Amino acid sequence: LTDPVAAALRADLPRITQRLADYVRIPSVSTDPSFSDGIRAAQDYLIGWLGSAGFASARRLPSRGHAPIYAEWLAGPGTLTILVYGHYDVQPPDPLDKWVSPPFEPRIQDGRLYARGASDDKGPVVVAIETLAAFLRLEGRLPVNVKVLIEGEEEIGSIHLAETVRAHRDLLAADVVISADGARWRADLPTITVGARGMTGFEFVVTTAAKDLHSGRYGGIVPNALHVIAELITSVRRPDGRIAVVGFYDGIHDAPAAEREALAQLPFDEPQLFAALGTTPAGEPGFTTLERLFLRPTIEVNGLWGGYTGVGTKTVIPHEARAKLTARLVPGQEPQKVKAALMAHFESRCPPGARLTFIDTRGSTAAYVIPLTHPTVAVAERVIGEVANRPVLRVRMGATLPINQIFAEELGIDTVPFSFATADEDYHAPNEFFRLSALEEGTEAWTRLLRALANERVAAYQPFRRPIAS
Amino acid sequence: LTDPVAAALRADLPRITQRLADYVRIPSVSTDPSFSDGIRAAQDYLIGWLGSAGFASARRLPSRGHAPIYAEWLAGPGTLTILVYGHYDVQPPDPLDKWVSPPFEPRIQDGRLYARGASDDKGPVVVAIETLAAFLRLEGRLPVNVKVLIEGEEEIGSIHLAETVRAHRDLLAADVVISADGARWRADLPTITVGARGMTGFEFVVTTAAKDLHSGRYGGIVPNALHVIAELITSVRRPDGRIAVVGFYDGIHDAPAAEREALAQLPFDEPQLFAALGTTPAGEPGFTTLERLFLRPTIEVNGLWGGYTGVGTKTVIPHEARAKLTARLVPGQEPQKVKAALMAHFESRCPPGARLTFIDTRGSTAAYVIPLTHPTVAVAERVIGEVANRPVLRVRMGATLPINQIFAEELGIDTVPFSFATADEDYHAPNEFFRLSALEEGTEAWTRLLRALANERVAAYQPFRRPIAS
Repeated sequence: LTDPVAAALRADLPRITQRLADYVRIPSVSTDPSFSDGIRAAQDYLIGWLGSAGFASARRLPSRGHAPIYAEWLAGPGTLTILVYGHYDVQPPDPLDKWVSPPFEPRIQDGRLYARGASDDKGPVVVAIETLAAFLRLEGRLPVNVKVLIEGEEEIGSIHLAETVRAHRDLLAADVVISADGARWRADLPTITVGARGMTGFEFVVTTAAKDLHSGRYGGIVPNALHVIAELITSVRRPDGRIAVVGFYDGIHDAPAAEREALAQLPFDEPQLFAALGTTPAGEPGFTTLERLFLRPTIEVNGLWGGYTGVGTKTVIPHEARAKLTARLVPGQEPQKVKAALMAHFESRCPPGARLTFIDTRGSTAAYVIPLTHPTVAVAERVIGEVANRPVLRVRMGATLPINQIFAEELGIDTVPFSFATADEDYHAPNEFFRLSALEEGTEAWTRLLRALANERVAAYQPFRRPIAS
Repeated sequence: LTDPVAAALRADLPRITQRLADYVRIPSVSTDPSFSDGIRAAQDYLIGWLGSAGFASARRLPSRGHAPIYAEWLAGPGTLTILVYGHYDVQPPDPLDKWVSPPFEPRIQDGRLYARGASDDKGPVVVAIETLAAFLRLEGRLPVNVKVLIEGEEEIGSIHLAETVRAHRDLLAADVVISADGARWRADLPTITVGARGMTGFEFVVTTAAKDLHSGRYGGIVPNALHVIAELITSVRRPDGRIAVVGFYDGIHDAPAAEREALAQLPFDEPQLFAALGTTPAGEPGFTTLERLFLRPTIEVNGLWGGYTGVGTKTVIPHEARAKLTARLVPGQEPQKVKAALMAHFESRCPPGARLTFIDTRGSTAAYVIPLTHPTVAVAERVIGEVANRPVLRVRMGATLPINQIFAEELGIDTVPFSFATADEDYHAPNEFFRLSALEEGTEAWTRLLRALANERVAAYQPFRRPIAS
């Protein structure tokens, strides 16, 4: 009793694989202006693809940044309306020399397609759009009202998405967001992600003199920007690993014992994970690895540089050093307060002779938790369980989904992650890949999800409406 | 009662200026193989110049690198033998766009000759050779036995000089080295430099995982190479600024009160210096700025890098971080022991989950101090004072002079700096210049020095012989 749409999709997997291979060739890096042609090409590609799938309305939405692509197919009132979310922008491919094959030339090996963006988020978007296209091709209609929003700034903090959504509240109005972004925790375990950490961060510059100085003529008598920045970074943590920034932990509630017990019950081969990463556990004392990841905040320096970094030696005392830093936040922490607390911490530790400059490089996002009784959570959980033929575990994720916060505040609705990427697929790193098996698994799950949502009562979603920001 | 040689040199200053202008046109950059024609041209130029001055013996010495030029004029036994040192190679002219006029086209303005190498070391070598040439032209002889050694690899660490000197110990045998290299401290104060700091250093790599990891997926559960390297760098100093590396200060004797008092008496406008550098004093507690610079060692990180350093943000946990580090050493410190102590310090502080790799990027040089009772120090000091008509101050320098160590070890003799370059002449930087007044001042001083050395007793130099390395 196979679903005809799922069967057609399975038969069509070679073409869908080719679709993904074509799509990842587009170098749509959002953070670096030198890739603006790639951004434009990805927008054009999506408009053409959605148009040929039957979304006559596919177009750019006005934006001060990289324009999101919008398309809709409306069955009419009385049926649930879903907003399908994804993003077409990708991380920078650096460091290029660590890639086995060029990042924008897809390579298929051992059932995986390697390319920048394959997992984050082009593979999952191919799954979603191709499923929608199959319904329209085979049945001439979709089971529910579908609005599609594929944005171009997810990798830079969705910095203009909130204002674009706010300007199009009526257009984007829906009962729930189904997100084709946000990787599954593990390949071996069916899960549904019900919470995500938030994020804030900035770049900062330490300046200690008017120019680099010769270490013979001035060594030992002037401050060294690299020493200062190293001290500032070190001062963020106490020796035991706890964050030393005053106010950083403000607002966090201790996790209920039941939640910590449930986490402890999750099947999790910790030694295997750390062996695979080539490292050992590290972090806040008094918490297990999964507690640290799902329930506790962290501060990570993502980049640090200054002075002579070429071949050989140059005996300079660098006068300038820079660091990029992000914090991952949990429920209760207010992102702007955390950012201000971090800046105040650095200012208070900055020694005489050094100056600090902060560069606000990205927006901030609070942590997010889906109400566990939300009807779509139950539907998604059931569908994932049917496809995997195993019980589904509820987990949180350590990563950040700014869009959940944006849709909650601007549209008053929740976001249910329904991505078939997996967290080990080296997105944000060299040799990013996507499991080709997820194309089959994902299109089957999306087919079942759309059919199941057709049976949902719209009224059941009213109690979950959130207040919309004015 | 003017010295006839000095008078002739003064009358000849226009031609000597032209000599310097011709010499700096030769682009004898030693570090970059694309300048090999310039290196060869400088060698030919020196051989022709020394030959026409009366040094019939001028020639290249065999070397695995850029050959040093050697010439001699021997008066005979019973007279002091001096080895005149200088170098014909120059720093690269980069960054070219910062030069007001092309680096190898001399420009004279406001009593200064601008060109790469004008100050380091072509101006001082012109002073020395033209003085020797004037003696030979006017008097047919030199006051002492003179051996001239002008090397071609000073700017790349004199990497083959030790082996060349070792292979020519008899040829180069002398009582003292008079160096036409090593700038005077200040233009406004007659000084003699009686010591220089040594140097050692290395690059090191911190590795914390097999690859960069996503800060959402792994933030807070794994070590971060940038946090580790920041902690390692910070651990080098105690909070008060003293070096925390066990064994680092071993062998250093406290400076005698008299030396510290003499330093305190030096006219030194500290606020003016730090205002010009755009910074404030920093360093080891309990010492003044000049004590820190002349008498105390330092450790400086010259370069530091890891993670994402491009435009915008990338939320990675870097798995690798690198730093380049050099220490400036004072008498008593053994470079190899200091290097080993630093490596041991880092190893002992390296946390679980992190690995350290050391890359030995450069040779080491011990600090150097001329015995203050060395007879040539007294002669040089007197001559400089006569020319300046002011008392001469003894100073050390914070920088490093590897050649002093080489001549001490290979020939068993000391090196007395007698250069008329000045430390503010932007050598190693764009718009290098040489004060033309130093041509007059320098040739008069060299004339007086050679006359005075003729009165020295050779036997008085025997007690200062150092053991020669075997």
